[in-house]
Amino acid sequence: MQEKKNFGKKGLTKKSENIAKWYSDVVLRADLADYSEVKGSMIIKPNGYAIWEKVQTVLDKKFKQNDIKNCYFPLLIPNHLLKKEKKHLQGFSPELAVVTYAGGEKLSEPYVLRPTSETIMYKTFADWIHSYRDLPLKINQWCNVIRWEKRTYPFLRTTEFLWQEGHTVHQIEQEAIKMALEALKWYEDFYKDYFAISPYVGIKSEQEKFAGAKTTYSVELVIPNGKALQAATSHNLGDNFSKVFDISFLDNKEKKCHPFQTSWGLSTRSIGGLVLIHGDDSGLILPPKVADPQVVILVIADKEKIQSEKIKKYAQKIYEKLNKNGLRVKLDIDLKYSLGYRINEWEIKGVPLRIEIGQKELKGKKIKFVRRDTFSQSLVFVEDLIIKTKSLLDQIQKDLFAKSEKIKRDLTVEVNTYQEFRKISQAQKVFIRAFWCEDKKCEEKIKQETKFSTRVLEMNKVKENLKGKCVHCGKPAKRKWLFAQAY
Amino acid sequence: MQEKKNFGKKGLTKKSENIAKWYSDVVLRADLADYSEVKGSMIIKPNGYAIWEKVQTVLDKKFKQNDIKNCYFPLLIPNHLLKKEKKHLQGFSPELAVVTYAGGEKLSEPYVLRPTSETIMYKTFADWIHSYRDLPLKINQWCNVIRWEKRTYPFLRTTEFLWQEGHTVHQIEQEAIKMALEALKWYEDFYKDYFAISPYVGIKSEQEKFAGAKTTYSVELVIPNGKALQAATSHNLGDNFSKVFDISFLDNKEKKCHPFQTSWGLSTRSIGGLVLIHGDDSGLILPPKVADPQVVILVIADKEKIQSEKIKKYAQKIYEKLNKNGLRVKLDIDLKYSLGYRINEWEIKGVPLRIEIGQKELKGKKIKFVRRDTFSQSLVFVEDLIIKTKSLLDQIQKDLFAKSEKIKRDLTVEVNTYQEFRKISQAQKVFIRAFWCEDKKCEEKIKQETKFSTRVLEMNKVKENLKGKCVHCGKPAKRKWLFAQAY
Repeated sequence: MQEKKNFGKKGLTKKSENIAKWYSDVVLRADLADYSEVKGSMIIKPNGYAIWEKVQTVLDKKFKQNDIKNCYFPLLIPNHLLKKEKKHLQGFSPELAVVTYAGGEKLSEPYVLRPTSETIMYKTFADWIHSYRDLPLKINQWCNVIRWEKRTYPFLRTTEFLWQEGHTVHQIEQEAIKMALEALKWYEDFYKDYFAISPYVGIKSEQEKFAGAKTTYSVELVIPNGKALQAATSHNLGDNFSKVFDISFLDNKEKKCHPFQTSWGLSTRSIGGLVLIHGDDSGLILPPKVADPQVVILVIADKEKIQSEKIKKYAQKIYEKLNKNGLRVKLDIDLKYSLGYRINEWEIKGVPLRIEIGQKELKGKKIKFVRRDTFSQSLVFVEDLIIKTKSLLDQIQKDLFAKSEKIKRDLTVEVNTYQEFRKISQAQKVFIRAFWCEDKKCEEKIKQETKFSTRVLEMNKVKENLKGKCVHCGKPAKRKWLFAQAY
Repeated sequence: MQEKKNFGKKGLTKKSENIAKWYSDVVLRADLADYSEVKGSMIIKPNGYAIWEKVQTVLDKKFKQNDIKNCYFPLLIPNHLLKKEKKHLQGFSPELAVVTYAGGEKLSEPYVLRPTSETIMYKTFADWIHSYRDLPLKINQWCNVIRWEKRTYPFLRTTEFLWQEGHTVHQIEQEAIKMALEALKWYEDFYKDYFAISPYVGIKSEQEKFAGAKTTYSVELVIPNGKALQAATSHNLGDNFSKVFDISFLDNKEKKCHPFQTSWGLSTRSIGGLVLIHGDDSGLILPPKVADPQVVILVIADKEKIQSEKIKKYAQKIYEKLNKNGLRVKLDIDLKYSLGYRINEWEIKGVPLRIEIGQKELKGKKIKFVRRDTFSQSLVFVEDLIIKTKSLLDQIQKDLFAKSEKIKRDLTVEVNTYQEFRKISQAQKVFIRAFWCEDKKCEEKIKQETKFSTRVLEMNKVKENLKGKCVHCGKPAKRKWLFAQAY
């Protein structure tokens, strides 16, 4: 028997032993991605891309419902445009890739490959916007972006990645803030409802916010090793860019004003978070709402060929029934491989529900279901096929979310003293919730001393006005922030 | 009244007078695209991108039905990979854009921005393919590509454009040929069924084929000025790339073989063809199957405010009825602008069907329909709203296709002598069908002397074995080819 390349006899690294190695193993062996000859870039394979298409479908529908129009701006950004906003340039300049030759000639001005599109877009917005009637302007693009990172991991940090970037322009700042918060909510809901992940959602510190933003809102995932993964951001840009790029409009009293802007994005990094949070020692676990297939039907061969054919036909019927009822199903009748090998393969690929059909099932009118997340088995009457499949998939989706909530809860620690902070941060990686005076200097020192950076001020704590003391300097602090080590 | 920027009082250039100028006018004023600061790159605006999304939806469904999986390969191609296939490199090297700096450092090997992805993909296919069981491999990607063109036009030829590129690998050549022809058929059907365009479809000459292909099949559009627009291509690559990139598999007798490959693509250029073929002196005309909206409802204001409100409510009802029946409708109640201005705007944007609702319609229970393609008007009883709207949209789709067939027929001339060929090609741009000996030298001379290049040998003429004489050299020629000037 020929063995498929990515599928040796050797098991995966254990997740608890070495999550980084486990992660690379799973990404490769579940056929999500492959390494490429381009340093730090990856190839997104069909299994990985199918997840991205699910993300696109869900978010794109949400955008369209909210009257956000898709468009496409150039990949290349003239150097002088990127230079216009100083903080923005500073933030991105170490990561830029630069085109210096094109069409056989040295370019008189180099082009930068977009690390994000604020500058190229906003230059054009200045031409598009003249009157308050042109507002709000709400657009989005699905595209590739390039950020030259030193240390890269598939999905989590690659020199090229795919994302969507929404950009809006509003007459008044309140509208822009509302928009930024709305986008944040779409992301949060997406993670909860589809990826079955319970994230932290809040405001970034001044130090950690997007280069050029007034406020950055962020969705942060708690990885099972206690590290934090920034999984989507939404920025209130204020009138910062609109002043720099001279975007202005006449209001209904013919007064010239600078509008207020937002930008917000979610990328293929989200897939990395999905793998890290739900996967186990047997490989990937996909939440039913984004899994394709959701159900795999395994035909178990019989010694007698005629019996095997009967089983196949029976399985085919089951397949068609599920398919007709809108479920995403795969029928595996590839009897060349051993049953153990095939089970192993579907487990690595994370298909949420497995149905096994052999001689016993053919005769007994009962079907064996195996859940990927718990490995628990159940026998189901054929008559209950659809209802049971649907309820099991629902249950898996819910249980995965509950599991993610537990991870988040278990890996979050409230801390009152810096001694505790240091002790805990040395012992293990967790999210630490602690009072902070919101002074940059304390933040920097904590990061230097513990490697823990501020992640977010949770949304429900923004308006708190407590009488606490900064965990580092002891000065008055009104609110508790979340600290963690970035993935 | 504030005037929208792209919408001055001045009319469009007449299509018959200066199609190039007319084209730029329409693209800008229908808000399909805008120029950018990046030389030769365009911004695809929401109206243009919506058409591209329709293309994507139709083709992507077709791909998935045929078990072609989407994936994503890196934008950047290491120089040495591109160099591997000599003809391929030669074909693309004048158009390459090159990244030489990244992450603050000069790169030891420059990266080229993909002009197409054969080389980066096939390098990896060699790792993925080992056994006949790994075949066929059928993938596709939707992405941006960069080709540094000197003369550029929005959609038709830009330094960056969007496309899909399908790539397949097969055990035997017959399968690859079948696949290449199948993709060609998808493109042809797409142009006919959705874009309402009747194209020429056939084989490219050796000289004009894709750099590195064994055979190139092409879809060519006849532009109303008689020029040819290559609008999609499909390549049988033979085992040319598989040998160069050392892709091989063991067949079922354990013999090592090189597989056979195809690649095929359709780009945002298709939108340029759509504009050129259907548009008229009043602007864009969109075929109902790709138009969004398909119907615009214009509310005509009454002098009395109360009456106007009644009309609006009535129009809203009509809107909801159409919407519920699956039609893409837009309700225009923006009474700030004059009726003439609003009509003008929707005509420029090419909405296939306009419904006008004013005081007369409110009272008379009849609704006024105006077709964008013919400007013909009809009064429709409210009871017939849905059936009439659907039948009119169907009719517009059919009539546009018939119009495109007529353009093609009228602009194709059969020619027997080179004297005729020269005379006609000097007088006007048309497609010329003529015997050609299939010798490269004749082809080159014809091109030098007339600017007419071979477009395709039509599919239904591939097997012809006539006793003709080459229109240029008089030597025996078996088949008639199509010649035209490229757009």
